[in-house]
Amino acid sequence: MRNVSEVFDAGEGVEVELRGWVWRKRSHGRLLFIDLRDSTGVIQVAVNAGRVGPESFEEASKASRESSVLVRGIIAHDPRAPGGVEVRCTYFKTIGQSLDDFPIRKGVTSRVLYDNRHLYLRSPRVTAVMRIRSNLIWAVHEFFRSRGFVEIDCPTLVTAAVEGGATLFEVNYFGKKVYLTQSVQFYQEAAIYSLERVYSIQPSFRAEKSRTTRHLTEFWHVEAEMAYAGFEDLLKTIEELVRYIVIRVDELSKKELRTLGRRIRTEEVEGPFPRITYAEALDILRRHGVDAEWGIDIGADEEKIISGEFEKPVFLTHFPKKLKAFYHKPDPSNREVTLSADLLAPRGNGEIVGSGVRIDDYEELRSRILEEGLRPEDYYWYLDLRKYGSVPHAGFGMGVERVLKWILDLPHVRMAAPFPRTPTRIQP
Amino acid sequence: MRNVSEVFDAGEGVEVELRGWVWRKRSHGRLLFIDLRDSTGVIQVAVNAGRVGPESFEEASKASRESSVLVRGIIAHDPRAPGGVEVRCTYFKTIGQSLDDFPIRKGVTSRVLYDNRHLYLRSPRVTAVMRIRSNLIWAVHEFFRSRGFVEIDCPTLVTAAVEGGATLFEVNYFGKKVYLTQSVQFYQEAAIYSLERVYSIQPSFRAEKSRTTRHLTEFWHVEAEMAYAGFEDLLKTIEELVRYIVIRVDELSKKELRTLGRRIRTEEVEGPFPRITYAEALDILRRHGVDAEWGIDIGADEEKIISGEFEKPVFLTHFPKKLKAFYHKPDPSNREVTLSADLLAPRGNGEIVGSGVRIDDYEELRSRILEEGLRPEDYYWYLDLRKYGSVPHAGFGMGVERVLKWILDLPHVRMAAPFPRTPTRIQP
Repeated sequence: MRNVSEVFDAGEGVEVELRGWVWRKRSHGRLLFIDLRDSTGVIQVAVNAGRVGPESFEEASKASRESSVLVRGIIAHDPRAPGGVEVRCTYFKTIGQSLDDFPIRKGVTSRVLYDNRHLYLRSPRVTAVMRIRSNLIWAVHEFFRSRGFVEIDCPTLVTAAVEGGATLFEVNYFGKKVYLTQSVQFYQEAAIYSLERVYSIQPSFRAEKSRTTRHLTEFWHVEAEMAYAGFEDLLKTIEELVRYIVIRVDELSKKELRTLGRRIRTEEVEGPFPRITYAEALDILRRHGVDAEWGIDIGADEEKIISGEFEKPVFLTHFPKKLKAFYHKPDPSNREVTLSADLLAPRGNGEIVGSGVRIDDYEELRSRILEEGLRPEDYYWYLDLRKYGSVPHAGFGMGVERVLKWILDLPHVRMAAPFPRTPTRIQP
Repeated sequence: MRNVSEVFDAGEGVEVELRGWVWRKRSHGRLLFIDLRDSTGVIQVAVNAGRVGPESFEEASKASRESSVLVRGIIAHDPRAPGGVEVRCTYFKTIGQSLDDFPIRKGVTSRVLYDNRHLYLRSPRVTAVMRIRSNLIWAVHEFFRSRGFVEIDCPTLVTAAVEGGATLFEVNYFGKKVYLTQSVQFYQEAAIYSLERVYSIQPSFRAEKSRTTRHLTEFWHVEAEMAYAGFEDLLKTIEELVRYIVIRVDELSKKELRTLGRRIRTEEVEGPFPRITYAEALDILRRHGVDAEWGIDIGADEEKIISGEFEKPVFLTHFPKKLKAFYHKPDPSNREVTLSADLLAPRGNGEIVGSGVRIDDYEELRSRILEEGLRPEDYYWYLDLRKYGSVPHAGFGMGVERVLKWILDLPHVRMAAPFPRTPTRIQP
C-alpha cells in the first residue's frame, strides 16, 4: 500500500505508508488534519497527539504547506473525511520542509499561476489534466498502431514552410538561417512511399501573435499521412480516431475526471459526424446575420456559429482553393474548391483537425507553387515525390491541446500544456 | 490479401491484389520479373506475355523502376524465386509512372543517398530500420506506462541551458533570444512534485560541430525522472529499460531483421550489467597505455577501450564533480565524485545513457551554480523546486538513435533517423 488511490480502495484497519506533500492543513490543538497529496490523489491524515509519539506530532505541527512528508497510519472509514476515508497517523516525518511563501494560493491571478507554472503543476486539478493528457497521447498511439501505421519522427529544423512563411520561427544554425517546423506533413509524404501509413506526435511551432484561447506558439501535433487514401478514407480515419481517443480517454481517466469534477461527453462522438461544405457554412453564417461572401476566411467567430448548429464534431469541407495551402487537391467536380476538411469541435471549440487530399501530379503541383508566388526550388524534394511513382494520398493534423480543451471544457489551451508557450510567455 | 508479407505466409494458388513500387526489374523477352516493394517487404512478380492480356503486358513492360503499380496474380511456390514464393501476374496497371533518373542507384556515394534522403527512405533496408525505430519507441512507451510513469511533453523553446551554454541553438522569439532545449530534465524535475515518475520522448538539440558517427544536432531523447529514487533505483531502472526494449524490439521486428540480415544480440542484455567507477576506468585505460590522469574526460576513444573489456552494456559511475553539470549530487562518501552513471554500449558503441542523482538541497545547489560561474537568477525556477518540499530524486536520458546504432550494428547514427540533422546537413 504505497499511494493515495490505493488507500481509497482498501479496507478499514489496514496499515499504510505514504509519501507525499502537505496540500492543506487544519489544526485543532492536539488534533491536526493534513490533506496529503501524491501523484494519485489527496487523502486526509489525522494526527492525534494522543496517538502518535511526541516527535511525530512535533514534525506534523511544524510541517508547512507543500512540505514533503512520510506518513504511516491506519485506514479508517469516517463519513466526515473527504471521500469517506482517512489515515489515522502513527508516525510522521518531514522529508523536505517547505518555505512559507509558496506562491500558489487561492485567489491569485492567472498571471501568478503561469509565472509559477513549475509550482502550479502541483495543484491536484493540474495534475489530473496532465495525467489525462498522458492518457490521450497513449490512446493516439494505440489507435494508429492497431491499424498498422508506423510512427515516424520527423525533423524540427527545416528550410521551407508548410503553412506559409509568415509564421516561421528563425533558428541560427551555425550561421545559416533555418526554421522551426510548422508541420511534419512534407516529411510524412516522403515516408509513405515506403511505409504507406505513418503517424507522428511531436511539437510544431507557429510564430503567430494570436492572443486567443486556442493558440500556443509551440503545440503538440498529431499528424498522419496515408498512401492511396481518398477523401472518404481520410474523413473516415479522422472520425474513427477522434471517436476512439475520446472514448478511450474517458475509460482511462475515471479518477482524474472525478478530481476535475468533469464528465467527458462521449455521446458527442457517437454516430456519424455531420458534414457541411464551405458553401453550406456560408448559408448558416448568413442566417446568423454574418455578411458571408464567398472566399471569406472561417475564423474563430465563424466557427463558433457553425459548430453551434451541431451537437457533434462537424466536418467543414471543400474550402476554396485560395483559402488553403498550395498542395491541396482540387475537387475534380469543381476545381475552385479543394478536397479539404476541417473538423470543428462542438460548443464553440473550433478547429481541432485540419486535413486534405494532396495534389499527386507533378505538373499540377508545380503550377500551384508558382501560382502562389512561391519558388519551386524551395520545394524541390517535395516535388520529387511526384516524379518517382506518385500515388494518391491524404493526411491530417490534430492539435493535442485543442482536443483536451474541448473534451475537458478548459477555458484556454494553455491549461492543457505543462509549460505553455505564448507570444508573451517563454518561461518557466 | 493486400500486402507482400501476407503473401509469403499464404498458400499456393491463392489470388492476390497488391499495390507497391517497382523495386527491380529483369526482362527475358516475353517474360518479365518485377520485384515489387511495399511497406512490408519485396516479392517477385512474374509477368508472362502468354498469361496476361496485351494491355497488362505493355504496362508492365513500360513500368520503370520506382513506378507505383497495381498487380493481381496467383501465388506460386517456386524455389527459384527469392524467399521461395512469387506472384504470377494476371493483371498489371501503373498508378504513377516514374521518371528514369531515380537518383538512388547501386554504388552512389553516401552524400547522394542523404542528399536524396526523401527517396533513399524507399530502400527496403532503410524501411526496415524505420520500422524497427517505430517498434523501439513503442517498447519505451510500454516500459514506462507499465510501471506507472506519466508521459509529460516538455517545451522545446527554453531560456536556460541544461547541458552548458556552448551547444545551444538560438531562436528568434518575436525579437527575443531564446534557445532550443538540450534536455527536458529541468521540466521533468518540476513535474515529479506532482506526478512523481515521469518520462518524455521528444527531440533534443545540441549545436555541436562534432563529426563523429554518433552525433546528430537534433536527436530523439528518451528521458525520465523519479521522485524518491536513489542511485541504486536509478541504475536498476536504466538496466531494466535497456533490457526490456532490446528484447521487445527483437520480438516485434523479426521480419525487419531478416530484411537487414541482422540479429539482435539479446544475450548482451541478459544478467546484471557490470559497473565500474571512473577511477577503475582510468586503471583500464592505463593498462591500455593511455596517459589517464584523474580528471580527464572520457571521450569516444576512451569509451571504446573501456567497453571493449565487457560483452554487456557497462555502467561507468562516480564521475568527478568537475566533469559533470552543476546539478549532480556528490557522493556522500567522497564529495569529489558524483552519484552519476553513463551506460556504455558494447562493441565500441559508447554512451547511450547519461544519468545521475540530482542535488535536492537548495543551498547546495545554489553554491554549485555559483561555483560554475553561472547566475542563480537564470535558474530561479529550478532552484524554487528545492524550496518547497524538496525530495531526493534521480533521472536519466537515452539517445534513441544511439540505441538503434548499437543494436542494429549501424555504422552511423544518421542511418537511424528518417531525416538526420548534422552540422552540414539540414535538408531534405
